[in-house]
Amino acid sequence: MTEHEAAIQGDDALAEADRLGLYRVLLSRRDVRGQFLPDPIDDAVLARVLTAAHFAPSVGFMQPWSFILVRSPQVRGRIKAAFEAANTEAASMFDGDKAAVYRSLKLEGILEAPLNICVTCDRDRVGPVVLGRTHIPTMDLYSTVCAVQNLWLAARAEGLGLGWVSIISEPALKEILGLPERVVPVAYLCLGKVSHFFAQPELESRGWRKRLPLADLVSLDRWEGERDEALAAELDRAQAAAEGGGIIP
Amino acid sequence: MTEHEAAIQGDDALAEADRLGLYRVLLSRRDVRGQFLPDPIDDAVLARVLTAAHFAPSVGFMQPWSFILVRSPQVRGRIKAAFEAANTEAASMFDGDKAAVYRSLKLEGILEAPLNICVTCDRDRVGPVVLGRTHIPTMDLYSTVCAVQNLWLAARAEGLGLGWVSIISEPALKEILGLPERVVPVAYLCLGKVSHFFAQPELESRGWRKRLPLADLVSLDRWEGERDEALAAELDRAQAAAEGGGIIP
Repeated sequence: MTEHEAAIQGDDALAEADRLGLYRVLLSRRDVRGQFLPDPIDDAVLARVLTAAHFAPSVGFMQPWSFILVRSPQVRGRIKAAFEAANTEAASMFDGDKAAVYRSLKLEGILEAPLNICVTCDRDRVGPVVLGRTHIPTMDLYSTVCAVQNLWLAARAEGLGLGWVSIISEPALKEILGLPERVVPVAYLCLGKVSHFFAQPELESRGWRKRLPLADLVSLDRWEGERDEALAAELDRAQAAAEGGGIIP
Repeated sequence: MTEHEAAIQGDDALAEADRLGLYRVLLSRRDVRGQFLPDPIDDAVLARVLTAAHFAPSVGFMQPWSFILVRSPQVRGRIKAAFEAANTEAASMFDGDKAAVYRSLKLEGILEAPLNICVTCDRDRVGPVVLGRTHIPTMDLYSTVCAVQNLWLAARAEGLGLGWVSIISEPALKEILGLPERVVPVAYLCLGKVSHFFAQPELESRGWRKRLPLADLVSLDRWEGERDEALAAELDRAQAAAEGGGIIP
């Protein structure tokens, strides 16, 4: 038996409770902007959440991510100002009813959340040639997003809300946080305990857009290919269950 | 009470079992290339996994993703040929020991897995102006990656292996699957039951790269900012636990 084969787990079936736990966390995750409490986050909890991010998949096992924990009120003030500048520009891009709804939405919790985290991607962490990034150069950015999603799910499992602030210019973020040219600020996150989680995404309950029927987004073998009707019925059933109570049976 | 407030959940604390379940799934997830079994995937299971993807976060609730289920042996044959062409180019980019290891790695399961899925991003799904994408134009691609990571975790929870094939040219993928110009093939995935999951990422156990110490990737308030020693100790502890047994205590 080789050393490699010795690394194989003997029993790798997960329990039914783990399967249901994953779905409960995944379906109750929300993008939180307005319900943050000021309580500090315990170091042990923060360490678990960051470890979840660090165990994300990465192209060529590159692990291109870093985590800047933004605690300084002064730095947060500059980030907030950069958001405000971008948001004023953004608001002017919507017309009519959408413009009014847009202005009424709270879209970040930069100063209220007890912690902000910028998740970055160092595109040169292992040199120019990366296994698996040779033909799709964005793969390292995608790996970093996988880390963000792991972080988000772990936060929800720990009872922490997380909001992704994307209405901000990348050059402003890079300047404020001192990022070198090669480092991309993939996600700016607000993290903390919350008073409550919404049952639905806020943009859904506020009427911004509806949840699409999943069965319409699935096709066979090519873009706008055939529909498998038996599978479509299962997709309708699973989506209805997920929308109804947060558990896929 | 407004309709919006009525959407708030009364009791949204998750059980300890759900928290542990999330971590077990997340830490035992692997990028699978070589252990696929030919057994077909049950429609109900596939529907749950795709529903998990569909409940990912998306910028402006845009839901830009679609899922092309590639079952046709003919289409898979063309994808496999596109992989082979790219992989030959890729192999020539590595030198010395790395070149030999690279050539010995199995990097896809396109023909062996019972199902392939291409997860795409329709950049024009809701028109040109998208809430939250006004300043970072890649946010819709990032949303699609969040859906991929949800899909990957749900697959692991269902006992299915998943491998992301990234050694392939995007133009070739678009041509084979008939994608319009505006649609990006974000991820080409191989999915199916497996004989077993590895305890460690294959690139780690094969010596390609080591897992980095997470504490070295975390800093305060700016790039290469200060280190919080108390937090670093917790990070070391959480990483050791995750590496040791797949559970963060």
